[in-house]
Amino acid sequence: MRYLSQIFQPVITIPKGAKIKNTEITCKSQKLLLECGLIRPTTSGFFTILPLARRALDKLELLVNSCLERVQAQRISLPCLTSANLWEKTGRLDSVGSELFAIKDRHDKKYLLAPTHEEAIADLMADVGPLSHKQLPLLLYQISNKYRDELRPKHGLLRAREFNMMDLYGFHSNIQCAHNTYSQVTEVYRRLFDLLGLPVHRLVAPTGEMGGSLSHEWQLPALAGEDSINICPSCSHVQRSGECEKCASETDVVQTVEVGHTFILGTKYSEPLQAKCIHSDSNSSPLIMSCYGIGITRLLAATLEALSSESQIRWPKSIAPFAAIVIGPKEGSKEWSKHGLNHIEGVARKFDGILGDDVLLDDRHTLTIGKRLLMADRMGYPHIIVCGRNSIETPPRYELYTNGRREPILGDINELMDVINGNSDTQRDRSRS
Amino acid sequence: MRYLSQIFQPVITIPKGAKIKNTEITCKSQKLLLECGLIRPTTSGFFTILPLARRALDKLELLVNSCLERVQAQRISLPCLTSANLWEKTGRLDSVGSELFAIKDRHDKKYLLAPTHEEAIADLMADVGPLSHKQLPLLLYQISNKYRDELRPKHGLLRAREFNMMDLYGFHSNIQCAHNTYSQVTEVYRRLFDLLGLPVHRLVAPTGEMGGSLSHEWQLPALAGEDSINICPSCSHVQRSGECEKCASETDVVQTVEVGHTFILGTKYSEPLQAKCIHSDSNSSPLIMSCYGIGITRLLAATLEALSSESQIRWPKSIAPFAAIVIGPKEGSKEWSKHGLNHIEGVARKFDGILGDDVLLDDRHTLTIGKRLLMADRMGYPHIIVCGRNSIETPPRYELYTNGRREPILGDINELMDVINGNSDTQRDRSRS
Repeated sequence: MRYLSQIFQPVITIPKGAKIKNTEITCKSQKLLLECGLIRPTTSGFFTILPLARRALDKLELLVNSCLERVQAQRISLPCLTSANLWEKTGRLDSVGSELFAIKDRHDKKYLLAPTHEEAIADLMADVGPLSHKQLPLLLYQISNKYRDELRPKHGLLRAREFNMMDLYGFHSNIQCAHNTYSQVTEVYRRLFDLLGLPVHRLVAPTGEMGGSLSHEWQLPALAGEDSINICPSCSHVQRSGECEKCASETDVVQTVEVGHTFILGTKYSEPLQAKCIHSDSNSSPLIMSCYGIGITRLLAATLEALSSESQIRWPKSIAPFAAIVIGPKEGSKEWSKHGLNHIEGVARKFDGILGDDVLLDDRHTLTIGKRLLMADRMGYPHIIVCGRNSIETPPRYELYTNGRREPILGDINELMDVINGNSDTQRDRSRS
Repeated sequence: MRYLSQIFQPVITIPKGAKIKNTEITCKSQKLLLECGLIRPTTSGFFTILPLARRALDKLELLVNSCLERVQAQRISLPCLTSANLWEKTGRLDSVGSELFAIKDRHDKKYLLAPTHEEAIADLMADVGPLSHKQLPLLLYQISNKYRDELRPKHGLLRAREFNMMDLYGFHSNIQCAHNTYSQVTEVYRRLFDLLGLPVHRLVAPTGEMGGSLSHEWQLPALAGEDSINICPSCSHVQRSGECEKCASETDVVQTVEVGHTFILGTKYSEPLQAKCIHSDSNSSPLIMSCYGIGITRLLAATLEALSSESQIRWPKSIAPFAAIVIGPKEGSKEWSKHGLNHIEGVARKFDGILGDDVLLDDRHTLTIGKRLLMADRMGYPHIIVCGRNSIETPPRYELYTNGRREPILGDINELMDVINGNSDTQRDRSRS
């Protein structure tokens, strides 16, 4: 259990049209994250992730890890600095050029702060020597900071210059194996977005400078999105543009944020970098590669963009910074006189024990319950438990505001835990009497 | 449960005096990590962390997190790129100079790939406005990649140019508060090193270019260390040099690796960067800062340096990549004929269930048990369970090699679990009959 009074959460109010450290406030998630003390810009396109957002990102990382384990992907860490000569060999030094952060070391050797790691991992595969077809398919991923020197960083975490990203690389002995793995990984993407409750659409995409033979974009509808998709109102078909391919209806254009991208790359990287596979007939050929990305910090912001209102954050339950917040009585109230701080700490601890060390106690007892309730609702904690006037009854009962409901459910700790765990519907319609 | 045949672990043998990708092999941990397929150099001073080392680092990170929670430290993430002008303000741009990786963005603005974040976090504190004395002490930390353009990177992860580090910053309203927190954090350091079973010595250190009034180095005895300490053979007193201060005996010089550093910084950073505190009398003054570092990747390597032999890795139990490995019968053996793969998978799953998804099954059944046992021992898995000839008895019994013992303990699954959990001494002296 944590005490809210001890959490570093520099809440601010941003006047309309204000600039914060040269950063223009242009979208909802950016405004909410800043105002609620979750992130803080340093310079244009760079952000400090503050404790509550860090907790949410930690949970998101764990969720991504557990999804990727289902396809036996193994986590590694590649250096963030990639030797520029690898990018020369694949021709991307020129094609990506202006968005690359380049750096020279004291010996004048050129490195890139990598935006992605196809070259680095193909070089690793070349270095460890040809892989046997028996080792394939092989899936390796990392979750790490990536860099892109955006001309115009904007929308906060949606388009930053330093961002956290999961990048997964597949290695295959033939194209059929690549396609099989691709299907499995895209199922894992579906599962992840389902677990987050996000209506993410998959669209065939041009392969562009990444190269390869097949690619999909994963697009989440959100007003701040810089991409768009077309949804058919009649048959729900999703496509890139124009009249519906399936039923010829007019389609609706919907703004979206790209939260993921998947590619079958073929041998674009493995061939110039000599990453090879030895087949059962002892012949060798370049590895067939696939790659899969999810922007972790971008996904966090996109999620808020899609689920929150202008003034209230809404998290997918699985990544809210805390599962529940407990609000104690106001100093000087009848409940305070009877209970003091000890009682409410005990209540919060009980919930915390059941919810796996994921409960926050709002111990700012000089503030009214009403004010703290508003703030907890704005922060979007999935469950808010209030120790109000029913808490001095025998037996004591508490108010539970759950899933954004305006009217509380009254009950003792066990009854409320049943509601939180979804085991009860008898309580569902009780409200503040 | 994982299958060893699917783990990406490019094992190699390095001939004496060989160079691997321009990297000279100069110490034990570097050789073991490379040969056992745990890390791989990319260019001088940069390393890819491979899956098994990644697992060990993940465990080490969790251990560090749980220790820091005891002092209510909150995790954040500062950008890895710090604006160079902050370092100009504190005067460190010149004093640290040549070891800094500097970079310019497309607008010619200068950034550093930060080796440490005193400037960045003091700037954050200035940005959020003066802290109230009621919010203090405040402890914020991150675990992230840091950069140092070493003239001569060497000893693998012990002196790399990109390394992972935990850096913790304390903010205080007065020096007494800073000293109290400093004591608490150094207790946490003790606890961490005790949990890892490492005999780390704390020594008063010069504050150097970091500035401030008090500093300690945390030194782990290891042959590859570039530092040294003096230990008195008579009274065990540890000091920097010369004759023992306490009993005037001759001291022994011991090579050490610095695994941590702690400082009370005073106002060296908060004053030029205007990070302030408001006191109860409404006056404000610069925050008193303290800082605490532990090199995570360096600590991993230093641990192996201290605990391993030249040919066998030894991990602290809490950070071994897997708690246990199960070795199945060789294909074609009597046990294989009776059991096949299913039986041994079942056995491994049972251990895995009890040990919290932390068991590896060595399913390379074309290799002899003896050969796989040697490899498992070289990798240093704390518990090795062999499904040998006693496994076809009724009831089946298995061999447990634990904590480096050469003779196995025989028992059924429950008996062996008792030994692993330290609940049994009746089994301790049974050996292969």
